[in-house]
Amino acid sequence: MNPSSPLVKVMRTERDALGDMDIPVDALYGIHTARAMNNFAVSGRPVNRNLIQALILVKKMAAQVNGEQKRIPARRVSAIVNACDELLTGRHQDMFTVDAMQGGAGTSTHMNVNEVIANLAVTHLGGQPGQYELVHPLDDVNCCQSTNDVYPTALRIAAIRLLRPLCDTMSSLQAAFQQKEIEYADLLKLGRTQLMDALPMMAGQGFGANAKAIARDRWRLYKAEERLREIPIGGTAIGTGMNAPRAYSYRMVEKLADETGLGLCRSDHPMDPIQNMDVFVEVSGLLKSAAVNLLKISGDFRLLASGPFGGIGEYMLPPVQAGSSIMPGKVNPVMAEMAGLTAMRVMANDAAITMAAASGQLELNAFLPLIAESLLESLHILSNAIQLFEERCVRGLIVHEERCSDNLRNSAVMASALVAELGYDEAASIASAAIAQGRSPEDIAEDRGQLTRARIDQLCHPYTVTKPGIPGQEEGTHHGNE
Amino acid sequence: MNPSSPLVKVMRTERDALGDMDIPVDALYGIHTARAMNNFAVSGRPVNRNLIQALILVKKMAAQVNGEQKRIPARRVSAIVNACDELLTGRHQDMFTVDAMQGGAGTSTHMNVNEVIANLAVTHLGGQPGQYELVHPLDDVNCCQSTNDVYPTALRIAAIRLLRPLCDTMSSLQAAFQQKEIEYADLLKLGRTQLMDALPMMAGQGFGANAKAIARDRWRLYKAEERLREIPIGGTAIGTGMNAPRAYSYRMVEKLADETGLGLCRSDHPMDPIQNMDVFVEVSGLLKSAAVNLLKISGDFRLLASGPFGGIGEYMLPPVQAGSSIMPGKVNPVMAEMAGLTAMRVMANDAAITMAAASGQLELNAFLPLIAESLLESLHILSNAIQLFEERCVRGLIVHEERCSDNLRNSAVMASALVAELGYDEAASIASAAIAQGRSPEDIAEDRGQLTRARIDQLCHPYTVTKPGIPGQEEGTHHGNE
Amino acid sequence: MNPSSPLVKVMRTERDALGDMDIPVDALYGIHTARAMNNFAVSGRPVNRNLIQALILVKKMAAQVNGEQKRIPARRVSAIVNACDELLTGRHQDMFTVDAMQGGAGTSTHMNVNEVIANLAVTHLGGQPGQYELVHPLDDVNCCQSTNDVYPTALRIAAIRLLRPLCDTMSSLQAAFQQKEIEYADLLKLGRTQLMDALPMMAGQGFGANAKAIARDRWRLYKAEERLREIPIGGTAIGTGMNAPRAYSYRMVEKLADETGLGLCRSDHPMDPIQNMDVFVEVSGLLKSAAVNLLKISGDFRLLASGPFGGIGEYMLPPVQAGSSIMPGKVNPVMAEMAGLTAMRVMANDAAITMAAASGQLELNAFLPLIAESLLESLHILSNAIQLFEERCVRGLIVHEERCSDNLRNSAVMASALVAELGYDEAASIASAAIAQGRSPEDIAEDRGQLTRARIDQLCHPYTVTKPGIPGQEEGTHHGNE
Amino acid sequence: MNPSSPLVKVMRTERDALGDMDIPVDALYGIHTARAMNNFAVSGRPVNRNLIQALILVKKMAAQVNGEQKRIPARRVSAIVNACDELLTGRHQDMFTVDAMQGGAGTSTHMNVNEVIANLAVTHLGGQPGQYELVHPLDDVNCCQSTNDVYPTALRIAAIRLLRPLCDTMSSLQAAFQQKEIEYADLLKLGRTQLMDALPMMAGQGFGANAKAIARDRWRLYKAEERLREIPIGGTAIGTGMNAPRAYSYRMVEKLADETGLGLCRSDHPMDPIQNMDVFVEVSGLLKSAAVNLLKISGDFRLLASGPFGGIGEYMLPPVQAGSSIMPGKVNPVMAEMAGLTAMRVMANDAAITMAAASGQLELNAFLPLIAESLLESLHILSNAIQLFEERCVRGLIVHEERCSDNLRNSAVMASALVAELGYDEAASIASAAIAQGRSPEDIAEDRGQLTRARIDQLCHPYTVTKPGIPGQEEGTHHGNE
Repeated sequence: MNPSSPLVKVMRTERDALGDMDIPVDALYGIHTARAMNNFAVSGRPVNRNLIQALILVKKMAAQVNGEQKRIPARRVSAIVNACDELLTGRHQDMFTVDAMQGGAGTSTHMNVNEVIANLAVTHLGGQPGQYELVHPLDDVNCCQSTNDVYPTALRIAAIRLLRPLCDTMSSLQAAFQQKEIEYADLLKLGRTQLMDALPMMAGQGFGANAKAIARDRWRLYKAEERLREIPIGGTAIGTGMNAPRAYSYRMVEKLADETGLGLCRSDHPMDPIQNMDVFVEVSGLLKSAAVNLLKISGDFRLLASGPFGGIGEYMLPPVQAGSSIMPGKVNPVMAEMAGLTAMRVMANDAAITMAAASGQLELNAFLPLIAESLLESLHILSNAIQLFEERCVRGLIVHEERCSDNLRNSAVMASALVAELGYDEAASIASAAIAQGRSPEDIAEDRGQLTRARIDQLCHPYTVTKPGIPGQEEGTHHGNE
Repeated sequence: MNPSSPLVKVMRTERDALGDMDIPVDALYGIHTARAMNNFAVSGRPVNRNLIQALILVKKMAAQVNGEQKRIPARRVSAIVNACDELLTGRHQDMFTVDAMQGGAGTSTHMNVNEVIANLAVTHLGGQPGQYELVHPLDDVNCCQSTNDVYPTALRIAAIRLLRPLCDTMSSLQAAFQQKEIEYADLLKLGRTQLMDALPMMAGQGFGANAKAIARDRWRLYKAEERLREIPIGGTAIGTGMNAPRAYSYRMVEKLADETGLGLCRSDHPMDPIQNMDVFVEVSGLLKSAAVNLLKISGDFRLLASGPFGGIGEYMLPPVQAGSSIMPGKVNPVMAEMAGLTAMRVMANDAAITMAAASGQLELNAFLPLIAESLLESLHILSNAIQLFEERCVRGLIVHEERCSDNLRNSAVMASALVAELGYDEAASIASAAIAQGRSPEDIAEDRGQLTRARIDQLCHPYTVTKPGIPGQEEGTHHGNE
Repeated sequence: MNPSSPLVKVMRTERDALGDMDIPVDALYGIHTARAMNNFAVSGRPVNRNLIQALILVKKMAAQVNGEQKRIPARRVSAIVNACDELLTGRHQDMFTVDAMQGGAGTSTHMNVNEVIANLAVTHLGGQPGQYELVHPLDDVNCCQSTNDVYPTALRIAAIRLLRPLCDTMSSLQAAFQQKEIEYADLLKLGRTQLMDALPMMAGQGFGANAKAIARDRWRLYKAEERLREIPIGGTAIGTGMNAPRAYSYRMVEKLADETGLGLCRSDHPMDPIQNMDVFVEVSGLLKSAAVNLLKISGDFRLLASGPFGGIGEYMLPPVQAGSSIMPGKVNPVMAEMAGLTAMRVMANDAAITMAAASGQLELNAFLPLIAESLLESLHILSNAIQLFEERCVRGLIVHEERCSDNLRNSAVMASALVAELGYDEAASIASAAIAQGRSPEDIAEDRGQLTRARIDQLCHPYTVTKPGIPGQEEGTHHGNE
Repeated sequence: MNPSSPLVKVMRTERDALGDMDIPVDALYGIHTARAMNNFAVSGRPVNRNLIQALILVKKMAAQVNGEQKRIPARRVSAIVNACDELLTGRHQDMFTVDAMQGGAGTSTHMNVNEVIANLAVTHLGGQPGQYELVHPLDDVNCCQSTNDVYPTALRIAAIRLLRPLCDTMSSLQAAFQQKEIEYADLLKLGRTQLMDALPMMAGQGFGANAKAIARDRWRLYKAEERLREIPIGGTAIGTGMNAPRAYSYRMVEKLADETGLGLCRSDHPMDPIQNMDVFVEVSGLLKSAAVNLLKISGDFRLLASGPFGGIGEYMLPPVQAGSSIMPGKVNPVMAEMAGLTAMRVMANDAAITMAAASGQLELNAFLPLIAESLLESLHILSNAIQLFEERCVRGLIVHEERCSDNLRNSAVMASALVAELGYDEAASIASAAIAQGRSPEDIAEDRGQLTRARIDQLCHPYTVTKPGIPGQEEGTHHGNE
């Protein structure tokens, strides 16, 4: 198209309360979107696509309900529904042009959706974008609705939809750890507290602890869905429901629940979810718990895989890419690092969500778009990061048996097994001597002659030490009498 | 006492692996505590007293179980139990001298408790502090135990004990809001979104939204208790249970559950709660959700009480103290501010807990004392702040009827009630004219002649507008045909 | 291109230590990038473009220096330099395909750049992508370099380049406030502390306080540039400089400084900036200070513009878009909200930067990409948000004179002016009576007969009260003798 | 004392605008304090003592200035000054009873100080506490003052006073690292990136990097003092200076600067520092940078000291206390952990300060007490933690030469030294073979026959590799021609 040609119209004019504005003639968005594009040219990042899709779904349902209940003529309803269906396939995504960092509690994203649907419906009816007398973005597409009830409703739907695959990846990660737990159930290694040599353990026990943490995450996130199910649709502007008949509200919840299969239910006081954002803080807090586990576990992977020679070297992570542009042969634990880095972003997003949620005032929270972007991003990246970490790091991990054995044998940790028999102070003295002389506590104990070597070996058998009970004792007895 | 006097012994000498050290002769703590006092002279703040009490309780139970199971002679058990009972009454609190900001995963706090109990037991047996041959802080008081399982067990007990009164204060706050909801069920006021005049609402509806948020907090915190019940007692050093017979572990859980009435249960893999701190992150995250609600609600109170003349002025908070050292007669919303400030501290504590929990390594988290102090502080101050806020601010709040009426009457918000009848664009034009001319939208609409005054008044009745439905319509009909 | 066609080769094969991999035949990236694309399919967001550009610049300089110093043949140098120049114009951005959320301390981003430059240079020399014998991504493009020195060097350059326009927008915002300060130097309004009516002030004084805060931000950010100037180029892998001759390092710094005009200088111990990230924490902390000011000021704008009828209503912000999809005529302070929302994101990014920086270990920080993305985003969005806020909100702001006058007149704040004459307690009594009776403190004081009306009016003149000094007194005298 | 006894008066009655209240007869605080004690029974923690001391100092100076300028009679001035002097010695600290967690922007702390000074002055004049006609807490002690200007002035003084010793401890820590840098200038060890074996380095180089980071902290904190010097004294309630003559303000700044020696200066627009808290955010941000360095360095200490057998084991930290209640002989890096834990608390305090500062509204920040407590705590604990870490951990650290040598020798890192001679790909192949076969890269290279053993040894000399330059080359030449 040639903008200088007198024959080709490249812009159309729309009008709102602030005056006229030129819009590209074929743009499916309208004047409200165009103003917002200018006002919020902040980050260059589009609004989260999952949110857009959920908004379109709400719009489609609303059109159908308004059609059923005779508030909008059938022909318009049909055009709106078709437009929504087209958009739900992923087409025209480039028409959702408002920046992710926006003022206005989501109104601009919402208007963007209203306008794109309206104009697409208009073209379906043979009109040109901007001919809102055919389908009006507010009077028709937004009938009985307000940003204040539609946006948080859509956000909840988008969040639950992302939560489910996240639960699945958690489940898969848990299974991977459980498999390692079984695989290495009998491989003895050194346990460490405060990074210092502590007591023997089975490598499998460590994976078992990983699995338990992830199992809790999975359960938490599964339960978190319940918190998101209550939707304020029908509450309209401040939650009182003005302009939304009760019949509309009930039917909307019913249809949304049916369509999504998400177990949505109606808030009995929509003013509450419109102004209170604590549910998103709660869900983000649970994501943060998962992030903490992911950061801890991935950090342990990096520690245990450190070396391969000058570190602990007990884990061997599958190599997935070359590690250095200058050090040939170097392989780094990049999947574990990626998991940790993602966890940190989730934690930072939680800080954003917390601040934004706490900044709500009176009947609305103006910072809802920050909550939405941060929460949906956390759900999305956590899901991907866990899946990649599991597939490319956990599954292929090998525990280095020889290295485990060396590290354990060289340590002086078996002195602990002598405490019940010799008392803490004597055992401490033995341990100190062992470390100082570079010998085993068993040998030192033997030298001191308080116990026979046979008894010492019985007490200090590492397999025994990884199980509950006082080494060398039947349960219920003690080292001495008074 | 004169230290140079040959007749008065002021110091006793204790010894550990690092050598000898002088301790005040009457001190109930011992050398491990004394070294920690020097090492951690950081904040000057003592360890949280609720944690100390819970540790003592665990010690008492352990002594009893070890007595029952014949690992410690009855006379020592009895001395230990008596010492614990004396300490549980609150005596000798000044002997818990280790700083709250300490390295070492809680070992120093734990040793402080072991030593104080041992020395008190020693004196009960007629000895002098330091005569550990009578009762030994490790071999006796700590028998079958490790910091690694005792400390997190005690922390869980302390946390649940603080959680319960917090739930009660939440319940009371919710009730206070519900009472206001009823009291002001019919008082019309202006609703505001993004701080701008929006739609009419009932003052009671606003309190109802407050009550709903607090109800969620209450439910969350009630459920949070479940997460804390699983205790790793018997796991000892890294969770494998070395030096703790199974019979000991089972009996400990049983006795602790009975004694506390808290529904405690045994972790089936103690290595997990010893190294994974996500449960505390989860609970702190829920406290943060409560803090977000408290900050939002208290902020609204401050906004609605602003003025009394040059602000919104719709709420009148009970005066609790003079507000200014220079402006006589000024009264400030200090209770709401205190609530908000406390909420911020809880949020900051959550940041500390998150960082510390994510910094665990391998079989232990060295930063557990930061988690403990932060979590217990959050529980404590949130409980107090909510109780004070409720008693001294919410209960006595009065909604200023005249001011509500003035603010509503002067606004142009009733234009929204014309949308369904006249369409969004015409209603917007009426609203703009009303604001510009300083007249009511009803009057502008009448001038324009599209509707009769009677119909306008029917549409714009504020009571109607606070209820679901399209003003002036029976449900199910629409403004026009196509 | 048809992948199934036997005549068209669509993929080429590359090899690294892990084996062979197919790459789209025309792709300018290579196997290291391709592996990273698979490994880090986390967020779908590309690496910050400013960082990519700075990396390319470093690569160009390095090629030139290596050419000068005869480490790379002239023909290759020329091809590399031309490739860099082409990329610096913004072409082939779609070849920088690695995800922003990546493990590996930036190696993958760096390899992506090395490979794209190499392949583009190869094509300039008549070869096909993948013919690394013509130009090798590591031996040639990366000669004398490592991710560890190149990446933080480029990040510093990118950060300073974004810092400068941010300082300019700060400067412009400060000027806008100063203009308002002058414009409203004599407009009396009510000052409020803790949101309660306090003392009279000039509207201009308030803008003056805004300007002072922004002036500090401007100064801080101007000084922050100094912290970023020290670059570790030449340090290579861990900062010791292996594989980088001294002559190379000195010349690189010289050329980078000349080319960028940024006053760059050489770190005298490159191991330090390679492993320590505190400088980015410092700069982010300064951005956070600016964010705090922006959030506070934009919050005040929203408060003072609240209403327009049922709030404070003293500021009128320029309308920039319609505010509601359901409430016609509603205009919201969306620019101030956008500024606040952006400030929150900057604060959350600071949390990410802090965590990542604190997580560095030994000779490197594996989480540097999170620092880079977060810092550059903060610089970028803060700059845009401030500019938009200034242009579309501050400049067009109008103070509502009548509203200011009404709010002030109705308050009881003049009682403070009576303190020096009557004492705090009597003035407090007058203020209380005024509030209770809805009369002015001046009238109450007159009734009580302690002062003449003339004296009262002299004391309570609001203009006087906005200036230093005791109302009604010459300096240096007191209300009474003892 | 028996409260029911008719002969002993235990309570006195005071009155304020809210009515009468009983106060313990000997209490030096008064009714404003007593009300605040009840209102803010939140944390049980007293207000930071450094803040109290600084407030008393301001009060003393104000009394003297008001005496000089004849606003308060000499006898009262003298009594107030004597009272202040007595309090400044540390007496009567138990009279500062208001909780640290308080609403009201500091008014209650300020009133507590006013009342204690007044009552102590009253007793000096022969009166009983409560006889405010002798010395009045507001009309006399607070003459020309407001919380709004006094509190932030005192906070700045308290902060600078804590900043100076912190700078000294930083300086000392830097020196300790520099000494280690010299001590271990020639001790070869393995450098690690992403925890993986990277390149050889000198142990001293690592300490040098530590020293550089701390040097920046020292410089930053030294410069931070400048930001705190500008004080709003004389601004009174909202910063306009009502009730404070110019002569008073100028003289106050002069006297405070003289008395403290801190280089204090007068804000030229006191309304700014009264409402804007960005300076504290800035200073806290700098403390956070220091905390990040401390956490990183202390984490490295823990890593390098891990083991002693089953970890890296290259550092030996001085033992300072026994490490375990169950594992005899275990010694943990508790000083490094304490440093890290303190750093986390400083970071969390920064979150509190940021939130509180951003929550300021209009002419005041109601959450200033949270800023004050958090900032002063951070300064205090950081100072102590650094001093203890330096004295008890850094100074006595020993690098384990044999362990360093073993770790280095066993690694395959020397392959990097072959890159310039053989190209990246061949060197990578050698490194991979070395790792796979458990042999040295030198041996593999020799087998492959591309280089002589002499040349290999020349290239792979670890001392050379720790210095800038291409191993085995004179500067300026390259590995081959084209």
